Amino acid sequence: MFELHEALARDCAFVGDFPLCRLLLMNDQQYPWLILVPRRPEKREICDLSDEDQLQYLAESNLCCAILRSEFGAEKLNVAALGNMVPQLHIHHVARFSNDAAWPKPVWGQRPAQPYSPEELQALIVQFRQLIPERIDFNF
Amino acid sequence: MFELHEALARDCAFVGDFPLCRLLLMNDQQYPWLILVPRRPEKREICDLSDEDQLQYLAESNLCCAILRSEFGAEKLNVAALGNMVPQLHIHHVARFSNDAAWPKPVWGQRPAQPYSPEELQALIVQFRQLIPERIDFNF
Repeated sequence: MFELHEALARDCAFVGDFPLCRLLLMNDQQYPWLILVPRRPEKREICDLSDEDQLQYLAESNLCCAILRSEFGAEKLNVAALGNMVPQLHIHHVARFSNDAAWPKPVWGQRPAQPYSPEELQALIVQFRQLIPERIDFNF
Repeated sequence: MFELHEALARDCAFVGDFPLCRLLLMNDQQYPWLILVPRRPEKREICDLSDEDQLQYLAESNLCCAILRSEFGAEKLNVAALGNMVPQLHIHHVARFSNDAAWPKPVWGQRPAQPYSPEELQALIVQFRQLIPERIDFNF
């Protein structure tokens, strides 16, 4: 049974469920930062997913990237599967800007998170939910 | 025309060309570290690649991950497209260990590279070349 890791549940807000992944918003106003968590609790790496799941992951990842560009004007995207501290497979999608707090370094471990206000967080979640089609079909 | 970015050319050794990506070995003996560089000079993100190229990238990425596990016993894989400092699209594949120099932090910007000796580097390149099939067909 899929259960979100406690660290992800603590640090992120739930946005919705894609066909494969749970979509989370990192509660850190320093960077627009989405996280995809494949609902495959026994898998630790992208390469461990089945072929079909890898395709679906790609489609969902592409959508996250498109949203970070269209809604936040991302100058650069950082897409990374690390998981050294949180073993549950999750893939970061971070919008980066040449004037952001950590630029040009990676965001991880640089600066403490600066949470959104409850109102800001709720508004962002609503914004994301409006952008997400009910079902993502992969076109591959 | 595809030309490798000077920073990648300086820091890495050339291993070979997959159908889509150039395969590089980071010259840093602290971590077994492969880099895939899609030979698509006009693309900056994985999501900018065509659908067909994304599938091919996945196949080549999966092979890198399999090699890092089978040959180096990777405990964890870090797979990341960052590119904040080197704009040419390139995807890191790093074998991580709970006793490595940067664990559990990401490897980027943590510690200066410790180059292999010329003999070690050459031996690794030979090892990798023997592991790479002439052509990778994606099975999706």
